[in-house]
Amino acid sequence: MKNMVVASTSTVHGSGYLEYLLPALEKLFENVDTVTFIPYARPGGIDHDAYTAIAAKGLAAIGKKVRGLHTYQTAEEGVLRAEALFTGGGNTFLLVHELYRNGVMEVLRKAIYRGLPYLGTSAGSNITGLSMQTTNDMPIIYPPSFKTLGALPFNLNPHYLDPVKGSTHMGETRETRIKEFHTINHIPVVGLREGSWLEVKGDDVYLRGDLTARIFEKDVAPFETEPGKKIYFES
Amino acid sequence: MKNMVVASTSTVHGSGYLEYLLPALEKLFENVDTVTFIPYARPGGIDHDAYTAIAAKGLAAIGKKVRGLHTYQTAEEGVLRAEALFTGGGNTFLLVHELYRNGVMEVLRKAIYRGLPYLGTSAGSNITGLSMQTTNDMPIIYPPSFKTLGALPFNLNPHYLDPVKGSTHMGETRETRIKEFHTINHIPVVGLREGSWLEVKGDDVYLRGDLTARIFEKDVAPFETEPGKKIYFES
Repeated sequence: MKNMVVASTSTVHGSGYLEYLLPALEKLFENVDTVTFIPYARPGGIDHDAYTAIAAKGLAAIGKKVRGLHTYQTAEEGVLRAEALFTGGGNTFLLVHELYRNGVMEVLRKAIYRGLPYLGTSAGSNITGLSMQTTNDMPIIYPPSFKTLGALPFNLNPHYLDPVKGSTHMGETRETRIKEFHTINHIPVVGLREGSWLEVKGDDVYLRGDLTARIFEKDVAPFETEPGKKIYFES
Repeated sequence: MKNMVVASTSTVHGSGYLEYLLPALEKLFENVDTVTFIPYARPGGIDHDAYTAIAAKGLAAIGKKVRGLHTYQTAEEGVLRAEALFTGGGNTFLLVHELYRNGVMEVLRKAIYRGLPYLGTSAGSNITGLSMQTTNDMPIIYPPSFKTLGALPFNLNPHYLDPVKGSTHMGETRETRIKEFHTINHIPVVGLREGSWLEVKGDDVYLRGDLTARIFEKDVAPFETEPGKKIYFES
């Protein structure tokens, strides 16, 4: 039974790393001593040790130890031995590239499906969807595929941003980009605003936090889901 | 001898399609009767005929006829028979996917190197660089490669946006994204603001329009190039 917290961002403005998520994480990691951290997305290019130290500091607040996946003999061994997993944010292209290169996309998927507690933030959330094709990130590296874990039956757009009223910029808004995605894809997309997360219990997916989430489907007008409700689709 | 206009955007706020570029295009297309239009990037998913009609309307203002590349027996034939080329904006992943699928990436590169007048806007500009890896677009389709025309010895970031002062959004700024690119790539990047274009004459690349452009290199502090000056790099 899947057991995940899938968050838009690790950090909300004016608050510490993971701080707003701690009550949810106490529950998610209730019976966990050590969380295995996947540092592949490397925000700002920092190395795996430095990134793991940030995660460790964040989860120390609820008494959890953290070990980087890169410290195991193989990444597969790390996932198989993990009590719980946390994939941090950064660049989704790099994260997906590294998951394939280390041969753990499938083993990670299986671990989530057998109920290993999983926390994702930003890029680490993106990969729980069917594909990484609704990321906001720059394609800084060419991954062998855009296919991701498929632990959720839809795609995510973390850090979802509403169009800026009165903007004179001619670049596409987030909503326009997702509509472009739907001109050639059928996968529904959940636009998750900063401060929101999904609580996943088996096949039930609840929206948590104080904000609504925006739901995009091909040939359906976008609509909002209220906090506390299950994510659902029209089509 | 390369002869290109490489523009950040087709349209600046408050002005018509291509309008601000028309004086530059009169010069670029001076001896041209018909411009061949590459509609593959399909903004908003519109079909090739509809997109070509928009391009035709824009270039009618300087008396040019426009024919869509999709109306030739093969795309290769279309490029080889063209007097001049214009690649419109939209989604860069889709554009690159279609250029490879239609087998014209290399033939297009050769046409530009032998001096065929070329206009690119947005995604159509992105592809003139070494790779499409500094696009802002969503990866709505998986192209066989991120490598592009290499008609310029650097990459572009069209619609370049300065960081918003005082923003509380935790998603990456454009500058942060380009810095991420440079954690694993060495290619210089030119951030081209809306209203700017590059005039390319052989190996000389001049910045045109009223705005400065922001230059990013690995391990070099970003700096600005003045309008009218040649694009240059520190390293």
